Amino acid sequence: MPEAASAQATRAVIGDSEFDRDTALTARAPGVYDIDLSAGWTIINAVNGGYLLAVLGRALADALPHPDPFTVSAHYLTASQPGPAVVRTETVRTGRTLSTGQASLFQRDEQGNEVERIRVLASYGDLDALPDDVRTTAVPPALPPMDQCFGPEDGPAPVDGSSEIAGRLMLKLDPSTLGWALGQPSGKGEMRAWFGLADGRDPDPLALLLAVDALPPTAFEMGLTGWVPTVELTVHVRCRPAPGPLRVSITTRNLAGGFLEEDAEVWDSADRLVAQSRQLARVRLG
Amino acid sequence: MPEAASAQATRAVIGDSEFDRDTALTARAPGVYDIDLSAGWTIINAVNGGYLLAVLGRALADALPHPDPFTVSAHYLTASQPGPAVVRTETVRTGRTLSTGQASLFQRDEQGNEVERIRVLASYGDLDALPDDVRTTAVPPALPPMDQCFGPEDGPAPVDGSSEIAGRLMLKLDPSTLGWALGQPSGKGEMRAWFGLADGRDPDPLALLLAVDALPPTAFEMGLTGWVPTVELTVHVRCRPAPGPLRVSITTRNLAGGFLEEDAEVWDSADRLVAQSRQLARVRLG
Repeated sequence: MPEAASAQATRAVIGDSEFDRDTALTARAPGVYDIDLSAGWTIINAVNGGYLLAVLGRALADALPHPDPFTVSAHYLTASQPGPAVVRTETVRTGRTLSTGQASLFQRDEQGNEVERIRVLASYGDLDALPDDVRTTAVPPALPPMDQCFGPEDGPAPVDGSSEIAGRLMLKLDPSTLGWALGQPSGKGEMRAWFGLADGRDPDPLALLLAVDALPPTAFEMGLTGWVPTVELTVHVRCRPAPGPLRVSITTRNLAGGFLEEDAEVWDSADRLVAQSRQLARVRLG
Repeated sequence: MPEAASAQATRAVIGDSEFDRDTALTARAPGVYDIDLSAGWTIINAVNGGYLLAVLGRALADALPHPDPFTVSAHYLTASQPGPAVVRTETVRTGRTLSTGQASLFQRDEQGNEVERIRVLASYGDLDALPDDVRTTAVPPALPPMDQCFGPEDGPAPVDGSSEIAGRLMLKLDPSTLGWALGQPSGKGEMRAWFGLADGRDPDPLALLLAVDALPPTAFEMGLTGWVPTVELTVHVRCRPAPGPLRVSITTRNLAGGFLEEDAEVWDSADRLVAQSRQLARVRLG
């Protein structure tokens, strides 16, 4: 079999991929779901916030009458661990075009008490029902071609801060935002990368929830090190993404009082702005 | 008495002003509050979304152990009307630096059933406890001096879309974003204004929740008319504002599928970025 055809044959598809299996929920009761949080999506020891957002987003897609997340606001409460978790959803309002829901993810502590990890409020709709008008002044980020960008596998040693999740993602960072990995941060609050799933699964709205929180923190390029925990993250899904790799651009303009914002834009292979997000995160100032 | 001294003497102060009286809540039970939504903050017949955010923000400031809203995410469910309302809060998590709460505002419909108007998730902290480090690349908006900007009272007739709220606000719009009022929208998704409270009360974090949703919609400058209802709005309060007028700059980059985002920045008289917000809103395309 020619090599191209062979690669094609082994590519994962939406509905049958690592990401789909690791976000799969089991309904325990109406609106209540069990899941085993996979250790495959951890950074150091913590479960990635975008993966958690996708888990909650999938629960709400099941619980609400509309299929697609339009806007999801998440407040991160305590750090999640790999292992069993329960997601409880509530339908807040059902409308013709939009429905709104709430979801929380809980895990048990060592004493067996339920601890809430993350709570989201979200409004869902049907992306395929939207008119296709676009008036935009936004332009895709200037990223070098993918073969001139670098991922964790390109370094002599694993990139600091990378972890299990690195094996699940296709992440190729723009060299101009990679100075931090060489000990020469640019000082600019910018991070840009090509993004996809390592098994070749194409993006869908749930994968966009993962994409907005998958890059190294902009704080690294601002010369800061250490953990940058998310306090709150809101994502707007603006369009169903076309097949193929995504481009993600993250910008921080204001670091003050030990907090910073990260604004992410996600662009698809058809040059459409498919998601916007903003998060408020804490930084530890040396 | 000299004129300046007289004006000084009649200026409202934080804690004793129209805004403070109209956001005052009466505790009915722990975490449950009654309020009479004032007709003074309506646009056409709807209660302004920023005023509602301030009401919910004040309820959470009372219910949570921390005083200041750091990040508030609101999902707007149904249009609020002037009159009685009840706010129910829930303390989600209490931490040392941050606490997280949820609040909903309800009103009764004609049949006497409670209808939820707006739900928020919010994380609170203490702005005065933050270190005063600032590393920012954000710059204040270029606004002409206030006496070269225009408010509803400067037109020959009330500006279209203005309403009762116009009498409570000091709003002076940048003429370069006022083309829509003269039938000549610029086509750019921009709106800029000087902002304050009409009675001279200085800004505080709750007033910032009002400021981010007080300008005419950017859609007007994009040549669209009609209502632009907010689906979701998240605001980050980054710093306690200094006394004096605020500058508010709102930008829309992407109108697509009948939805647009509005990004707001609020700057204080000391040239500090005191709040950032983003909302997702619906537009009616002619």
